[in-house]
Amino acid sequence: MADNATKPLRIAIAGLGTVGAGVIRLLDTNGALIAARAGRAIEVVAVSARDRGKDRGVDIARFAWEDDMIALARRDDVDVVVELVGGSDGPALALSRAALSGGKGLVTANKAMIAHHGLELAEMAEAANAALKFEAAVAGGIPVIKGLREGTSANVITKVYGILNGTCNYILSEMEATGADFAAVLAEAQRLGYAEADPAFDIEGVDAGQKLSILAAIGFGTRIDFPGVRISGITAVRAADIAQADALGFVIRLIGEADVEETSQGPRLLQRVRPCLVAKGHPLSAVDGPTNAVVAEGNFSGRLLFQGPGAGDGPTASAVAADLIDIARDEVGAPFSIPVANLAALPPAEPGHRTERTYLRFMVKDRPGVLAELTAAMRDGDVSIESLIQQGRSSGGGEVMVAMVTHEGREANVTRALGLLEGSGSLTAAPLVLPILPR
Amino acid sequence: MADNATKPLRIAIAGLGTVGAGVIRLLDTNGALIAARAGRAIEVVAVSARDRGKDRGVDIARFAWEDDMIALARRDDVDVVVELVGGSDGPALALSRAALSGGKGLVTANKAMIAHHGLELAEMAEAANAALKFEAAVAGGIPVIKGLREGTSANVITKVYGILNGTCNYILSEMEATGADFAAVLAEAQRLGYAEADPAFDIEGVDAGQKLSILAAIGFGTRIDFPGVRISGITAVRAADIAQADALGFVIRLIGEADVEETSQGPRLLQRVRPCLVAKGHPLSAVDGPTNAVVAEGNFSGRLLFQGPGAGDGPTASAVAADLIDIARDEVGAPFSIPVANLAALPPAEPGHRTERTYLRFMVKDRPGVLAELTAAMRDGDVSIESLIQQGRSSGGGEVMVAMVTHEGREANVTRALGLLEGSGSLTAAPLVLPILPR
Repeated sequence: MADNATKPLRIAIAGLGTVGAGVIRLLDTNGALIAARAGRAIEVVAVSARDRGKDRGVDIARFAWEDDMIALARRDDVDVVVELVGGSDGPALALSRAALSGGKGLVTANKAMIAHHGLELAEMAEAANAALKFEAAVAGGIPVIKGLREGTSANVITKVYGILNGTCNYILSEMEATGADFAAVLAEAQRLGYAEADPAFDIEGVDAGQKLSILAAIGFGTRIDFPGVRISGITAVRAADIAQADALGFVIRLIGEADVEETSQGPRLLQRVRPCLVAKGHPLSAVDGPTNAVVAEGNFSGRLLFQGPGAGDGPTASAVAADLIDIARDEVGAPFSIPVANLAALPPAEPGHRTERTYLRFMVKDRPGVLAELTAAMRDGDVSIESLIQQGRSSGGGEVMVAMVTHEGREANVTRALGLLEGSGSLTAAPLVLPILPR
Repeated sequence: MADNATKPLRIAIAGLGTVGAGVIRLLDTNGALIAARAGRAIEVVAVSARDRGKDRGVDIARFAWEDDMIALARRDDVDVVVELVGGSDGPALALSRAALSGGKGLVTANKAMIAHHGLELAEMAEAANAALKFEAAVAGGIPVIKGLREGTSANVITKVYGILNGTCNYILSEMEATGADFAAVLAEAQRLGYAEADPAFDIEGVDAGQKLSILAAIGFGTRIDFPGVRISGITAVRAADIAQADALGFVIRLIGEADVEETSQGPRLLQRVRPCLVAKGHPLSAVDGPTNAVVAEGNFSGRLLFQGPGAGDGPTASAVAADLIDIARDEVGAPFSIPVANLAALPPAEPGHRTERTYLRFMVKDRPGVLAELTAAMRDGDVSIESLIQQGRSSGGGEVMVAMVTHEGREANVTRALGLLEGSGSLTAAPLVLPILPR
């Protein structure tokens, strides 16, 4: 460290969108304090983006410019490359490989790239004794990667779960606050910049799934398995479900959860992203708007909660710069806490035998015998009903809602019961199944 | 790092109470995983405590024993000393000095010692290029020291606040849940082990004040100033206050808060510990039982929340072991994030000109004219009343409660208004002043 102590850490930034501009603004604003804490200055040397002339609210004329991002990643005067281009492959991956293979450090906010190629990049980093850091890839400004790598490092992590997508959380908590339906709130979220023009990646749960796969790898010491994440998004949640959940004492949140299950065939990794009913009073129930929150349960630490802004240029820049400070302090270590070669490759768990309470919502034709049909299917699937509410007759269309909460029971039983209803002429929409998050 | 990579990190533990035994149990239980994450094993070499023969539920016969803690701290076969003796001075301080002056690392859970002597110890550590770490001294198992040192390291921290004492939080949330009065809940907390036999240190707010002074130093880069913390505890809070707060939409929590104020005479440090009204829906309002929670507001990160078990042998051992892993990874750095010599010495701020909403509770004689006397004092102190509730006539004793919530106004005005009531024969107890925590 001594030989580096007086030299600045020289960085290159690839990608100058709102986050890239945010990193520059942060280093400008807090540079003196960062130098004091890091023990040396962090200096931007060179930048690259698609459009050199665009006004970004920060002066980039003082930095060297590279049209070619690979050339940027190979500059001799750069110690660390900051990848803010985005996309799991393409230029982001190419420049990341170029940086690491050249022995430079890499800091990235790119959850898709880490979820798909994180292990390969980490192997390259380990081979080159270079840093690979991605705090900004998960939960924006919340230092949850550091929380797992360092804060809970002495614990067997038994479970990681939380609210990992700010767009979904904004939509669900707005639906709750206003009573509006999904489409209307999504449109408002797009207007406010909380949702992308193409929102599928967020609202279908893919973004949360990518983040979850990264958290699971670090928490459990397992190889990233993004394809193994069971994902369902929030598009089927209606205003009526939120109202019904509210009446029962719950809010609805998109929850990513992961754990390792010991089976007779060895350990298996369960990862899933689902909208869940969360009891009011549970710490995650109070997480509103574009906020993220992650719970990690350790065998000695107990249940720890990390919460904060899940996105935005300021929080994301904060996480990127924290990684840079770690590197400036020579605190590098294995990207996934232990070397990639030692990460366990676990097959995905089959959760059917697990038990949970479940909220089931059916949209059905308003005709005699429908309730009998539904409840018979539950009985035949061995699903025990704790409460059932049939909403008053709808104003038109002859469609009514039936909502049930089950006693705790096997997930497979619910699946079986719903299977018995498949193809029934009584249903006017696919049933919605929302688990109830345990306390 | 390379030369250390295969050698175990050899530690000595001074103090074998529940936390010391917890550290041994943790290293026994999670040793293989810790070795994988730290890159090398962490091995207990020697221990010391008052009573060698006591049954602690862990086998200590395999470790070398030292009757003399100073001798323990000076053993040649020890890299890091873990101080779990407790107490701000005495043996804890003596052995800590011996360890650091001998160039050994020191890990401690001792908030009192750090609050009183942390700067001296950090200077010794810096001079010897040794590690000094105290994650376990603040907020039990929550990695909030690391959160501030590393997670938010790129930010100007504008404010740190939170629930820092599990005993007080247990008592207040139990009073809330049961309607019982302070003394009864305290007795129950003592029976359950959530409160000490001599609870003054906790319930008077001293413990929270010590933790706050440590958080402020790291967050703001200021010298620890524990004597500068304005402290009031929870002993004056009555069941009736909690019921009244509930009716108004609040819970009562003991909050430590710190910020740096820019004044015409330069920056000043405000640190205070007070019971506050916290609006239901605020993240801190849902923090129940012996849980701690810390909020840090950064100029880029936004508002981050760290929450978890605030005490107990498991969580505290988790924090101690996380520090040991950092040291095993050679991730040491300045104990207070920047060298002690660069910490700013700030005079304490005078908060009288600050504005807040306030809950005021008076116990008064049940006789004509008392309300007029109270409200006249408020008027003459320039305190604007938002709402006022006089409780129905008491069953006996002729004492009634008057509770007010003020509009936002200068703190000094409330002090002035209360000064006008000093010595009044209408008051049967000192008024209780509880600020309302801003959202």
